[in-house]
Amino acid sequence: MSHPSDPPRPDRRAPWRVTLGNIIFNNDTPGARLFDLALTLMILLSILLVMVESVGPVRARLGPQLRGAEGALTLLFALEFLLRLVTARRPTHYARSFFGIVDLLSVLPGLLSLLLPGAQAFQVVRALRLLRIFRILKLGRYLSEANIITSALRASAAKITVFLATVLTLVLIIGTLMYVVEGPANGYTSIPTSIYWAIVTITTVGYGDIAPKTGLGKFIASATMILGYGILAVPTGIVTVGLTQAHAQSQARRSCPACGEAGHEPAARFCKRCGEALPAAPEP
Amino acid sequence: MSHPSDPPRPDRRAPWRVTLGNIIFNNDTPGARLFDLALTLMILLSILLVMVESVGPVRARLGPQLRGAEGALTLLFALEFLLRLVTARRPTHYARSFFGIVDLLSVLPGLLSLLLPGAQAFQVVRALRLLRIFRILKLGRYLSEANIITSALRASAAKITVFLATVLTLVLIIGTLMYVVEGPANGYTSIPTSIYWAIVTITTVGYGDIAPKTGLGKFIASATMILGYGILAVPTGIVTVGLTQAHAQSQARRSCPACGEAGHEPAARFCKRCGEALPAAPEP
Amino acid sequence: MSHPSDPPRPDRRAPWRVTLGNIIFNNDTPGARLFDLALTLMILLSILLVMVESVGPVRARLGPQLRGAEGALTLLFALEFLLRLVTARRPTHYARSFFGIVDLLSVLPGLLSLLLPGAQAFQVVRALRLLRIFRILKLGRYLSEANIITSALRASAAKITVFLATVLTLVLIIGTLMYVVEGPANGYTSIPTSIYWAIVTITTVGYGDIAPKTGLGKFIASATMILGYGILAVPTGIVTVGLTQAHAQSQARRSCPACGEAGHEPAARFCKRCGEALPAAPEP
Amino acid sequence: MSHPSDPPRPDRRAPWRVTLGNIIFNNDTPGARLFDLALTLMILLSILLVMVESVGPVRARLGPQLRGAEGALTLLFALEFLLRLVTARRPTHYARSFFGIVDLLSVLPGLLSLLLPGAQAFQVVRALRLLRIFRILKLGRYLSEANIITSALRASAAKITVFLATVLTLVLIIGTLMYVVEGPANGYTSIPTSIYWAIVTITTVGYGDIAPKTGLGKFIASATMILGYGILAVPTGIVTVGLTQAHAQSQARRSCPACGEAGHEPAARFCKRCGEALPAAPEP
Repeated sequence: MSHPSDPPRPDRRAPWRVTLGNIIFNNDTPGARLFDLALTLMILLSILLVMVESVGPVRARLGPQLRGAEGALTLLFALEFLLRLVTARRPTHYARSFFGIVDLLSVLPGLLSLLLPGAQAFQVVRALRLLRIFRILKLGRYLSEANIITSALRASAAKITVFLATVLTLVLIIGTLMYVVEGPANGYTSIPTSIYWAIVTITTVGYGDIAPKTGLGKFIASATMILGYGILAVPTGIVTVGLTQAHAQSQARRSCPACGEAGHEPAARFCKRCGEALPAAPEP
Repeated sequence: MSHPSDPPRPDRRAPWRVTLGNIIFNNDTPGARLFDLALTLMILLSILLVMVESVGPVRARLGPQLRGAEGALTLLFALEFLLRLVTARRPTHYARSFFGIVDLLSVLPGLLSLLLPGAQAFQVVRALRLLRIFRILKLGRYLSEANIITSALRASAAKITVFLATVLTLVLIIGTLMYVVEGPANGYTSIPTSIYWAIVTITTVGYGDIAPKTGLGKFIASATMILGYGILAVPTGIVTVGLTQAHAQSQARRSCPACGEAGHEPAARFCKRCGEALPAAPEP
Repeated sequence: MSHPSDPPRPDRRAPWRVTLGNIIFNNDTPGARLFDLALTLMILLSILLVMVESVGPVRARLGPQLRGAEGALTLLFALEFLLRLVTARRPTHYARSFFGIVDLLSVLPGLLSLLLPGAQAFQVVRALRLLRIFRILKLGRYLSEANIITSALRASAAKITVFLATVLTLVLIIGTLMYVVEGPANGYTSIPTSIYWAIVTITTVGYGDIAPKTGLGKFIASATMILGYGILAVPTGIVTVGLTQAHAQSQARRSCPACGEAGHEPAARFCKRCGEALPAAPEP
Repeated sequence: MSHPSDPPRPDRRAPWRVTLGNIIFNNDTPGARLFDLALTLMILLSILLVMVESVGPVRARLGPQLRGAEGALTLLFALEFLLRLVTARRPTHYARSFFGIVDLLSVLPGLLSLLLPGAQAFQVVRALRLLRIFRILKLGRYLSEANIITSALRASAAKITVFLATVLTLVLIIGTLMYVVEGPANGYTSIPTSIYWAIVTITTVGYGDIAPKTGLGKFIASATMILGYGILAVPTGIVTVGLTQAHAQSQARRSCPACGEAGHEPAARFCKRCGEALPAAPEP
C-alpha cells in the first residue's frame, strides 16, 4: 500500500513495460480486467486439477491428460511471474512481497517436475506441487470489501490474543486433569492427546474418537462444555464491538483538506460542503 | 414488489376473476383468510404424507391409503394452480415468479404419476414426487416479519461473501495439508475428502467419521478448531451490525410527503406531525 | 403479576393465615427467607435422590434408604402444598397458577406410591415420580435478574419465530434431498431420519451416527454446514439487538407521577428530580 | 491492586531487598524485564517437560534426562519462591495471595520427589507434579488487556448466572425425559448419564458415544438441538452488550482532580483540559 503523500519517484521503465504493467497490476481498464479474469480462471482451474488428481480412480484413468494440463498451466504461470517481474515499477519490491513469493512458490514445483521428467515419481516433488494451492490467495487481491473486516480484527487483535491465551491455558489444565482422571486405559494416552481432546470439546467440535468413560470424567467433560458454551460468547462480543467501531470510523475517516469537513462517503471524490477535491481513498 | 409510484395499469379482468383473485392473492378479507388457512393446512398435510410414506413399515401397511390421499391432494393443488393462473392480474408475471414455478413443480410429479398409472412403479417418478417438498416454501408468503432480517442480510451480503471466500480458502489449504500429513491410510483418501473433513471441523460439526490419527495431524486439527472458534465470531458480528442498522433505518424510512417528517411507525397511516396521509408501506 | 393500579380487594383471611402466607409467599422477612432456603434445599435434595436412584449399583445397595428419604420428602412437599392452598390470598388463583400445578404434579406420584405400596413396582408410577424434576422450576421464583433477558427474548419473539421457520424449512428440504442422494443403504433410512441428520448437521452438533458416504452427499453436507455456520449468526444478532434495547428501556421505563421525570434506577424509590414517591417496581 | 489513595507505609526493608524486589515484582526496568522473560521461558519449559514426559515412548527413552531437567527446574522455582518471600514488601501478604499459593503448590510436589527419592514411584506424587501447570497462570500478570474483558464479564455475571441456571434446568429435564424414553438399553444407563448426553447435545459438542435410537428419542433430540441453537445466542448477546458498555466506560473512567474533566485516553498522564497531572491508572 503506497501512501498518497509519498513523493512521486521518477519512472524509468520503457513505455511498453509501463503499458503492460498497467494491464497486469491495475484493474481499471478493459484490458486489465480481461487479464484479471483470465488469471482467476487459470487459478481456479489449477486448483481443480490438483484436487481431482488426488482422487484415486480419476488419476488411474485420466492421469496423462491431467499431467499434460498441469504442465501447460505451470508454463503459463511461469510466464506470468516473468511478466510481473519485468513490468513491475519496483521489481525487487514485487519479488519480496507476499504475492511475489506466492507466485514463485506455486510455479517452482511444477517447473521442477517439467525440467526433471524422471523425477516426477519422487514423492517429495508431488508434495511440493500441492503448494500450488496457495495461488488461491491471489484472488484476495480483488476483494476490497475485506478491508473493514480486517481493520475490525486488527483493532480487536489484543483482546483476541488475551482470549486465545486464556483458552489455551484452560485447555492445558483440563487436558492434564483428564489425563489423571481417565488415564491411558480410556484413550487419554498422554497429556498432548488429552489436550487435543480438550480442544475438540471446548470448541464444541466433538469428534467422539476420544470420549470420557468414568463418571468423574463425564462430569469434568460436562463442565468443560458448558464453560466452552459460555466463553464462546466472548470473541463474538469482541468482534462485534470492533466491527461496530470500524463501521463508524469508516464513515468519518477522510476529511476535506480545505475545510476539514469529515464523514464523506467512501465513493465521494469532492467535499460535500465546499466542493474541494478529496484525497484519494487509500488503495484496498 | 410494486413501487407505489408505478402508474396504475387498466385492469381488463372479468368481475368474477377480480373477486376470486382478491380471495386467492390477498389476505385481508374473511374469505381470503379462510382460503389461506385451508391452503396452509393442505401444504402441511402434503409434506406430512411425503415424510410418512418414506418410512418403510408405514408404507408397507398404509401404502394404498397414502397414495389415495396424495392423489386427492395433487388434484387440489393442480386446481389451485389453474385458479391462480386464471385470476392473476398478470398471469405470465405469476407463472414466471418464484412461487409460480414452485406451484408448478410441486404439482407436476404427482400429476404425472396420476396420468400414467402404470408408471407409478418407476423409480424416477417416485423421486420426482419428492419435489412436492418445495410446497413448504409457499408458507413463506405469509411471513412479513422476515423483511428486517432479509434486509439486514442483504446489507451484509458483500461482507458475508468475503467471509465465506476466506473460509473456503482456509478449508482448501487445511484440507490439502491434512491430505499430505495424514494420507489415505488414515481415512484422508483424497483432497476433496480432506476438504470435507476440514469443513466438518472448522464449522465445529465434528462427525468423527474421519479423525486425525498422527500427532502432527492432531496438532493441525487443534489449530483448525481454535481458528474456527475465533472466526465463528466474524459473521455474527457482521449480522449484528447489519441488524442494528436495519432496525434504525426501519424507524426512519418513510417520510411525510407534505412536511417531510420522518421516523413514522411501521403501522402508521397518517403523518404524526401534520396528519397528511402517508405513502403505503412497501409490500412485504 | 399484579398491576400497581389494581384496586385493593378486601382481605378476608384470618390473622394466622395472613402471617403464614407472608412467610410462604413473600421473601422479605427473616422468617420468609428461612422458609425459602429450607424449601430450596429440599428441592435440590429431592432432585439428587431421583438422579442417584437411577444409577443401577447405587439402587441395588441403598434402595430402601433412598425410598425412605423419598417418602419423607414427598410428605413434606404435600404439607407445603396444603399450606400454600390454605394461606394463599386467592386459593383458586394459586391452584390454577403454573407453580400451583407444578406443586401438585410433583407431589402426586410420590403420594400414589405411598398410598398404594404394592403399586410401587409398576413402571408407570416410577416414571410419574420423575415429574418431581419440575420442582426445580420453583427456584426460578427467586431470580429477578431473569426479567431483562425474558423481555429481550419476548421483543425478539417474532424474528426468532421467522428464523426457526426458515431453519425448519431448510432442514426439511435438505433432509429430503439427502434421502434421495444417499438412500437407505447409507443410513438415511427415511425422510424423518434424514431430517434428524440435517438438524444434527445444521446445528453443528454432529453425532456421526449417520454420516454421508457418497461424494455428492459429502458435498451437500459441506454446503449445509457452511450454511449453518452462516445463519448461526442471525439469532445471535437478533438477541443482541433485543438485549441492547431492553437494557436501554429498563433505564427509561418508570416515570415520576408528579413531574414525569423518567430514567430512574431500578432500585430507586423516590423521584430523583422532585422527591415524589415512585410507583413500586413491578414484581419479578 | 493498591489504591492510589492508600497512605504510604514506611518501608523497613534493607536496600538490597528493595533493589531485588523491584526486579522481581515490577516490570518497568531492563533488569525486571529480563527476569520476567527468563521466568516465562522457565515456566513454558517446565510445562513442556510435564507434557512430553506423559508420552510413553518418549518417557521410555529419555526418562532420566527428563527427570534431571525437572529436578533442576524445581530447584530454580523453589529459589524464586524464597526470593519473592524475602524481597516482598509485605511477605505474609504475598504468601497468602493467589500467586503465592500457586508458587508454593507448583514447587512442593517436585521438592517432595527430590527429598524422598524412593517415593518417586508413588502414583500420587506423580499426579501432584502436574499442579505445576498452574504456573502458566503467572503469565496472566503481564496481560493488562484482559481487564476490559474481565470487567465486561463481571458486569454481566448476574445475567450469565441466570442463563447457566436455565441451561442446567433444561438439561436436567431433558436428560430425565430421555432416560424414560430411550432407557438403559439404548445407552442412557442412568439419569446422570442422560444429563451428560443432554449437555453434550445442547452445547452442540455431539460426541456420538450416546445417540438416540428410537423415533421419539430422535424427535426430542432434534428439539433439544434447535433449542440449543437458539439459546446459544443469549450469552453472546449478554457479553456483547457488556463489552460495549465496558468499552464506553473505559473511555470515561478517569477524571481530572483539578477540573473534573473526564474521558482521558488510557495512556494520558496529564489532563487534556487544564494540564493537571492525572492520578495513575490502576495497576492491571
